[in-house]
Amino acid sequence: MPSPAATPQPPYYAVIFTSVRTDGDNGYGEMAKHMVELAVEQPGFLGVESARQEIGITVSYWSSLEAIKTWQEHLDHRQAQRRAGDWYARFRVRICRVEREYGS
Amino acid sequence: MPSPAATPQPPYYAVIFTSVRTDGDNGYGEMAKHMVELAVEQPGFLGVESARQEIGITVSYWSSLEAIKTWQEHLDHRQAQRRAGDWYARFRVRICRVEREYGS
Repeated sequence: MPSPAATPQPPYYAVIFTSVRTDGDNGYGEMAKHMVELAVEQPGFLGVESARQEIGITVSYWSSLEAIKTWQEHLDHRQAQRRAGDWYARFRVRICRVEREYGS
Repeated sequence: MPSPAATPQPPYYAVIFTSVRTDGDNGYGEMAKHMVELAVEQPGFLGVESARQEIGITVSYWSSLEAIKTWQEHLDHRQAQRRAGDWYARFRVRICRVEREYGS
């Protein structure tokens, strides 16, 4: 069964990536898969959740702002960032400190 | 065209609600629509983004922790929270402070 990310006790950090896709794949599927595979391997990675309908939302969770910075500067990630215009008509990146978490 | 929420300069706050649905509607569709309509009317509401595939992610944005608290204590919202088990096999609520935002 799919499941929310199993994150530790806050505080930790979240990157909320919200996007609207351009038409056509343009290598998007392959890149997106590669980015998740890479992110999972990064130091400080805690989990990821993703869904897309009209809008796409991917939330990745990280142990620190330094871990986020290191991931954002990863060479393959940088390369993908440079092609953002091919894949996204609009996107927003929001970097957040998770203060509290609860649920079932 | 769908669009990411038009939020102001950080800092502001985000509630990341991640969930896995139970089978069947059980009044879920109507409740979810009502909750968004109500949230939009709350003081301090800044925007909302939502998508569902295997997992559902709804991120609502708020001007302050007080605004989030007031919304969470709204009578209709409380009533919906009490029925969470009817609609969600699993859910997580994460309350975050948005520190930085950028995009196209």
